[in-house]
Amino acid sequence: MSSPDSVTLDDVKAARAAIKDLVVFTPCQPSVKLSALTHTKLFLKMENMQRTGAYKDRGAMNAVVSLDDKARQAGVIAASAGNHAQGLAYAAQCNNVKCTIVMPETAPIAKVAGTEKYGATVVLHGSGFDDALARANEIQKETGATFVHAFDHPKVIAGQGVVALELLEQNPFLEVFVVPIGGGGLIAGMGVVLKSINPSLRIVGVQSEKVPSMKVSIEKGEITTVPGATIADGIAVARPGSYTFPLIQKYVDEIVTVSEDEIAHAVLLLAESEKTIVEGSGGAGLAAVVNGKIKGIEGKQVCVVLTGGNIDTSFLAKLLAQGMAKDGRLAKFSVIVPDRAGSFVDLSQIAAEHKANVIDIHQSRTFTSAAHRDKEIELLVEVRGPEVAAKMLEAIKAKGYEVTQHAAA
Amino acid sequence: MSSPDSVTLDDVKAARAAIKDLVVFTPCQPSVKLSALTHTKLFLKMENMQRTGAYKDRGAMNAVVSLDDKARQAGVIAASAGNHAQGLAYAAQCNNVKCTIVMPETAPIAKVAGTEKYGATVVLHGSGFDDALARANEIQKETGATFVHAFDHPKVIAGQGVVALELLEQNPFLEVFVVPIGGGGLIAGMGVVLKSINPSLRIVGVQSEKVPSMKVSIEKGEITTVPGATIADGIAVARPGSYTFPLIQKYVDEIVTVSEDEIAHAVLLLAESEKTIVEGSGGAGLAAVVNGKIKGIEGKQVCVVLTGGNIDTSFLAKLLAQGMAKDGRLAKFSVIVPDRAGSFVDLSQIAAEHKANVIDIHQSRTFTSAAHRDKEIELLVEVRGPEVAAKMLEAIKAKGYEVTQHAAA
Repeated sequence: MSSPDSVTLDDVKAARAAIKDLVVFTPCQPSVKLSALTHTKLFLKMENMQRTGAYKDRGAMNAVVSLDDKARQAGVIAASAGNHAQGLAYAAQCNNVKCTIVMPETAPIAKVAGTEKYGATVVLHGSGFDDALARANEIQKETGATFVHAFDHPKVIAGQGVVALELLEQNPFLEVFVVPIGGGGLIAGMGVVLKSINPSLRIVGVQSEKVPSMKVSIEKGEITTVPGATIADGIAVARPGSYTFPLIQKYVDEIVTVSEDEIAHAVLLLAESEKTIVEGSGGAGLAAVVNGKIKGIEGKQVCVVLTGGNIDTSFLAKLLAQGMAKDGRLAKFSVIVPDRAGSFVDLSQIAAEHKANVIDIHQSRTFTSAAHRDKEIELLVEVRGPEVAAKMLEAIKAKGYEVTQHAAA
Repeated sequence: MSSPDSVTLDDVKAARAAIKDLVVFTPCQPSVKLSALTHTKLFLKMENMQRTGAYKDRGAMNAVVSLDDKARQAGVIAASAGNHAQGLAYAAQCNNVKCTIVMPETAPIAKVAGTEKYGATVVLHGSGFDDALARANEIQKETGATFVHAFDHPKVIAGQGVVALELLEQNPFLEVFVVPIGGGGLIAGMGVVLKSINPSLRIVGVQSEKVPSMKVSIEKGEITTVPGATIADGIAVARPGSYTFPLIQKYVDEIVTVSEDEIAHAVLLLAESEKTIVEGSGGAGLAAVVNGKIKGIEGKQVCVVLTGGNIDTSFLAKLLAQGMAKDGRLAKFSVIVPDRAGSFVDLSQIAAEHKANVIDIHQSRTFTSAAHRDKEIELLVEVRGPEVAAKMLEAIKAKGYEVTQHAAA
């Protein structure tokens, strides 16, 4: 294992100078609404607005610009189905360096296309990350390309740490920094900066409770593998890095975890309240703050890093719909009605009276509990809130129909 | 009609001093991706991150803080189903002033709930904006509240103009300003600032081609009513204001229009590329730039104002899905298969081989062109791109099935 001095404040300052013109200085935006909700003075560091949609550009860029001429000739390679793939592809493209990314064959469509867009060669291999990694190592040996690890690499860690340098300029009064942890590259780099400049700054890591690998490792005092899966795939890293682990031991105050529901809700909250799109891992930090996972932050200036925005469009659309269902703004009813013309009229009128927007309507005559002369109608409506759905339910009952309202997924 | 001197640079400077601590200084963010796409140096003024999700807070706040004590006691009132409703409600709440908003009964659920959240009383009345306006005037007479117009009010115009003061600070090298026009309050206020400070700055207004009321009015040289409907409901204003019209005559260089499809595509582009959520009107400015509606801006520093982000969640989800369909990442097939067990197997295998994620599957036996012993299956899949969908189509045909691929909506 490496020493906790593998990355220093000077390394991060050098990284900043090296990558400054190639990465986005992202906003650190105060949110009045989320401040009120969380009883803090809340700021959002919007790394989802970074060039490739995630902070990964910073570390990858620092690794690529640090290559000597011979290494530049041989190109770079990585195994990643995540944001590192796009970050490294972009960094290589900026520097005219050839880039190969190996992904498992199950990689999300958006990530493959996103990576190819930056000029990288994407090799799909095997059914999981380990297969892809093995293939990447083979290609590395064949080509002599430099393997750039997604987080366990001092140049990468130093590059990610630039986020903290920007934040201290943007708001020197920040007191608490909330940073999602996967492999730990971002929080390690930020920790070096923040604690070196002001040891009283508080740094809180956030992991998915499904993959709490860094939290478990820190508690045990040794790097521990904790496999698992989460909708926050950007932080689904089973094993901390040998560089990041000691840095986090030294610089991070605590690590908390959040549930899948808390993550999904945070993604929705950021979309609806802040008009900004994050992927699951990008919402993890806010999830921790909103759900009271971090004690003693009331009234404090808290910065949450929105690490990335590369959410699959179809997954985002699904989350938005689920969120509406949970908030009671989508309601689904099953109604038994007589199987004859005109049976829709009562339902249509009830929907109209409640200003319910009918989103979908299905009917079934075969697999239903309805008697022979009845049929079952499933009605999906958008309403103003759960109280309207409850009134609709009563109105349908009052007309004499048998009706059940479905619970939100 | 009013004079073009109803609002001056000093009025906007005074507005800025008055509202500074109550509105968000929103980011003016450069976009590398959209710059490359549009051959400009493109900046986004993110008013969708304003307190209530739109720039309207600024004008409403300036109107409310300008009230004397007696007027504050009597409260404010407006007729609006749009962002002005929330802006005024928020401005009133900040100043402990009672606020009543009249909306048509057809007002979107999100706008009603959003307005009530800021402590306003929402009165739902009538089937359209005119009914709501008549009722607002009645209530105004009964209560003596101050009627605050959404755009045709010098204090409101001066408040919106603060956007331009911020922009000149954020990037003094901006050359072209692209601003959506509904009633014209925002562009009028910005125009006063920009042309007073530097007459060579170029100001371009953007309207929906479905409701080009200001464009037609400017061309005719007189205020003209042009009714219409657009998905950019924030700029669906049929008649320019008597204050805004002469200001726009004096200060705005040109007005261009964009189509519904162009607007929808811009909303999707901002979500996918910039990770930011805008409503239809908020995407209109980018739509004009992306679709070449503004000549001679190549290489120039162009600022597009993203005016608002208050899009209905269900509408956003629908746009995201439509966008995927258009980009060829959602594909829908109708396949005629024998009506017996096992008929799904071939289709499932073909989908799996093409790494297509099955989103929805429907089958029909009654209303179909299929012969008696066949049935029709509708298959909705997410694929990597249109070329994969084309290959799937061929693979289904190669198995001997009759198949058609649906065109994107």
